[in-house]
Amino acid sequence: MNFDAPPLETVTIDDLEALGVGAGILGTGGGGHPRVGKLRLRTIFEDPTYPDAVEVIRPEDLSADATVASVGGMGAPTIGVEKFPNGREEIRSLDAIETASGRTVDALIPGEIGGVNSIVPLCVGAMTGLPVLDADGMGRAFPELQMDTFFIYGHPVNYAAISDERGNTITYQDVDSAERLESFARAATVDMGGRAGYAFPLMDGSFVADYSILDTLSLAHELGTAVLAAQTDGRDPIETACEVVGGTQLFTGKVTDVYRRNEAGFANGEVTLAELDGTEDITIEFQNEFLVARNDEGDVLASVPDLICLVDKDTGLPITTDALRYGQRVTVLGVPAPALLRTDDALDVIGPEAFGYDLTYEPLRVE
Amino acid sequence: MNFDAPPLETVTIDDLEALGVGAGILGTGGGGHPRVGKLRLRTIFEDPTYPDAVEVIRPEDLSADATVASVGGMGAPTIGVEKFPNGREEIRSLDAIETASGRTVDALIPGEIGGVNSIVPLCVGAMTGLPVLDADGMGRAFPELQMDTFFIYGHPVNYAAISDERGNTITYQDVDSAERLESFARAATVDMGGRAGYAFPLMDGSFVADYSILDTLSLAHELGTAVLAAQTDGRDPIETACEVVGGTQLFTGKVTDVYRRNEAGFANGEVTLAELDGTEDITIEFQNEFLVARNDEGDVLASVPDLICLVDKDTGLPITTDALRYGQRVTVLGVPAPALLRTDDALDVIGPEAFGYDLTYEPLRVE
Repeated sequence: MNFDAPPLETVTIDDLEALGVGAGILGTGGGGHPRVGKLRLRTIFEDPTYPDAVEVIRPEDLSADATVASVGGMGAPTIGVEKFPNGREEIRSLDAIETASGRTVDALIPGEIGGVNSIVPLCVGAMTGLPVLDADGMGRAFPELQMDTFFIYGHPVNYAAISDERGNTITYQDVDSAERLESFARAATVDMGGRAGYAFPLMDGSFVADYSILDTLSLAHELGTAVLAAQTDGRDPIETACEVVGGTQLFTGKVTDVYRRNEAGFANGEVTLAELDGTEDITIEFQNEFLVARNDEGDVLASVPDLICLVDKDTGLPITTDALRYGQRVTVLGVPAPALLRTDDALDVIGPEAFGYDLTYEPLRVE
Repeated sequence: MNFDAPPLETVTIDDLEALGVGAGILGTGGGGHPRVGKLRLRTIFEDPTYPDAVEVIRPEDLSADATVASVGGMGAPTIGVEKFPNGREEIRSLDAIETASGRTVDALIPGEIGGVNSIVPLCVGAMTGLPVLDADGMGRAFPELQMDTFFIYGHPVNYAAISDERGNTITYQDVDSAERLESFARAATVDMGGRAGYAFPLMDGSFVADYSILDTLSLAHELGTAVLAAQTDGRDPIETACEVVGGTQLFTGKVTDVYRRNEAGFANGEVTLAELDGTEDITIEFQNEFLVARNDEGDVLASVPDLICLVDKDTGLPITTDALRYGQRVTVLGVPAPALLRTDDALDVIGPEAFGYDLTYEPLRVE
């Protein structure tokens, strides 16, 4: 990434639009629809009960033994756009793990970057006064919680909680693996109607400093700002986006087919794109997020953990998997994954084979 | 019931055999295999770390605002006989709801009467020093947790927890119905391998006094004592059992068929019995517990909530649904359910229609 903008110090209502756009692009089709995240945070900022700004900090601003938790939404994005939260799901989850552990959380961190899940920690920060770290556990979005760098790099599943809009709250402790927490919490999320708020795990500041993907809120903000500015200043929004994130354009075409099904708490499926002035097409498979893009000869253009991002070909605005529609004109961006996602340990959990594909990860190269 | 024996004041190792037999019969095929419950409590009594006796008390021994919780095992009995616990599942669950609520439990109560689930509270009592109430939430065993009188009579699902032998612990709070807790906890129990220990809910002493089935530990003990004594003093164990519990003999025959499957965390199926010296047969359907007994013309001999208990025709010892085998010679006892299980409120939850049968409950009458 070619990111050298000044880091975010606060988030106010003026940052919402840019953050939503940038996080929506980096969310690789998942992480929630940007409109949903923006609406939640806008509602809070417009409520006089709460402050007008959320503090954004860096891991080095925390003491090594400060307590950090991630908060966000779990479930299928297709459900997330229809089943709105009551807004206190993550706070109840946070309360539950604080009570269970006897610890007090000092800062929040997004579990992933996406239109909802990078915004929810800011909502909780605004409501609780807690600062939010300029970092996250994925540097993008992934469908399952063991795919957080926190768990990939060995953090114990000490405490976790989920809560739904009716107040049903479930706390998990001493769970023997992140995969088991995923299984427990996914089944309960389905039972809750397909969408819940979460808080997990309780991490020390030093762990977060070592094993989170850094500067991702600032990156999302810068990306969104650049794309929105390009729409009016005559630059090409997509070229601008590629410059900010160090990505490349993989394909531009029209959505000719979308196959999507909600199963086991995920929005799974595939989308086919056809060239506007040509005969080539490509297919992208997704599980909440875009996982593998192939051309019509079956060659892999990009795969997890590298980012496959769909944007409107004219505006550069993100298109999430829940919003895919026949006829959309889209550009597919490929963005090399952060280094922490490309290690052997990471590829075991978030490489194409971890998603059931019989293919070896080939790192995306951008000239 | 014709029960007028002196109430139990303590349970020691000398009571185990009788309690296991009596609770096994009253468990109506479920509530766990008596051998499993006895083994757990015997192991604790033989451990010098723990006292030699557990105190048994009546609801009137508790203050109105004392805190009571039920503890026991959840899952399919067929799995419970093979997947042994590590013994601390229920204590971890109890710790979890105490921490979540900030309350301290003063006494334990069995959630149901059965070969395991009336014994587990005694195990936890022995390990923690807490007294155990001579009462329970079913007066028998039922497959699902909303079938506890606590929930039938409106106690909120304030706190609940389950834990498995690996230490995975899940706490539920503010759950909006007992049916939803059943759904959450059943799915998690299946994920835990089909068997978990539980603690729930946190009740006041006054609620337990009004809405539990009273004297059931004493009844189980008296029933077991009488059956065991009859085996050696020449009386008929089965007639003796009927006298103690106010029941009747519905049928005696040989097991000619058992259809059993583990599905969705339950041991479901049906058993067919044929007369030893005749041509009649009967079929009994079960879901962990025996639910409906019909003769070969389809007439209902007995149904939930009345107790259908299978015992060995010679010894009077209980036969649980997991232990049914071709060729067993068994007698089927019918025992009228306690009054709290026969109200309209109760029948909505534990009547035959609640189990999906198209039949109206006809109270079993014993001449």
